[in-house]
Amino acid sequence: MSWLDEISWDKDGLVPVIAQEHGSGKVLMFAWMNREALALTSDTKQAVYWSRSRQKLWRKGEESGHTQTVHEIRLDCDEDVVLISVEQTGGIACHTGRHNCFFKKLEDDAWKVDQPLVKNPEDIYKPIA
Amino acid sequence: MSWLDEISWDKDGLVPVIAQEHGSGKVLMFAWMNREALALTSDTKQAVYWSRSRQKLWRKGEESGHTQTVHEIRLDCDEDVVLISVEQTGGIACHTGRHNCFFKKLEDDAWKVDQPLVKNPEDIYKPIA
Repeated sequence: MSWLDEISWDKDGLVPVIAQEHGSGKVLMFAWMNREALALTSDTKQAVYWSRSRQKLWRKGEESGHTQTVHEIRLDCDEDVVLISVEQTGGIACHTGRHNCFFKKLEDDAWKVDQPLVKNPEDIYKPIA
Repeated sequence: MSWLDEISWDKDGLVPVIAQEHGSGKVLMFAWMNREALALTSDTKQAVYWSRSRQKLWRKGEESGHTQTVHEIRLDCDEDVVLISVEQTGGIACHTGRHNCFFKKLEDDAWKVDQPLVKNPEDIYKPIA
């Protein structure tokens, strides 16, 4: 019996994953993994997710270079949510060029952006010449 | 247009929610909210989730007393994940009687429990006499 069998995969064979920054404790992003992605993440210590929109493995940083080195993998009480602690290459986890994805804060019944761009997305995702 | 309309609710009208402890930054739990739960959470500053298993509002702490006072509500780049920062009453977020739900750590291809019980669940959830 593999540790992977202990996970309660959802009907699509996925598990939600929270990526938290090692050291700062900031929540960087939320994504999904299937069995192969989680096995690869554990084996390589590099975060690999499952892209639901593209329906394929998403090796975090494959285009941006903003890979995530995994320090720790945790499972919750119900065995249906994974929490990983990662070191974020480039200090940018979000595709918008920000440190993390949770840059909209509710203030006076409105979402206010309170995180600066670390880098412009156009400079992260360069078109192939 | 309400701030609630800006959220990309899933096909079941839900949004995944990560609850992080104010101060320590520990990820306490992961759950779901519907529109009513999130509106109540914002209005009352007490976390209210949607229980998918019971199909009803779940006022966190309604049985255990382990309520969560909300300091901050955040939304991610894709507007489909919510992150809340909370103060955890009793220091117990998990129904197992532990500080948080992520007490299983992957070590040598096995899940190891590395958090003690703060309180026995039998002492938290008392049967109604």
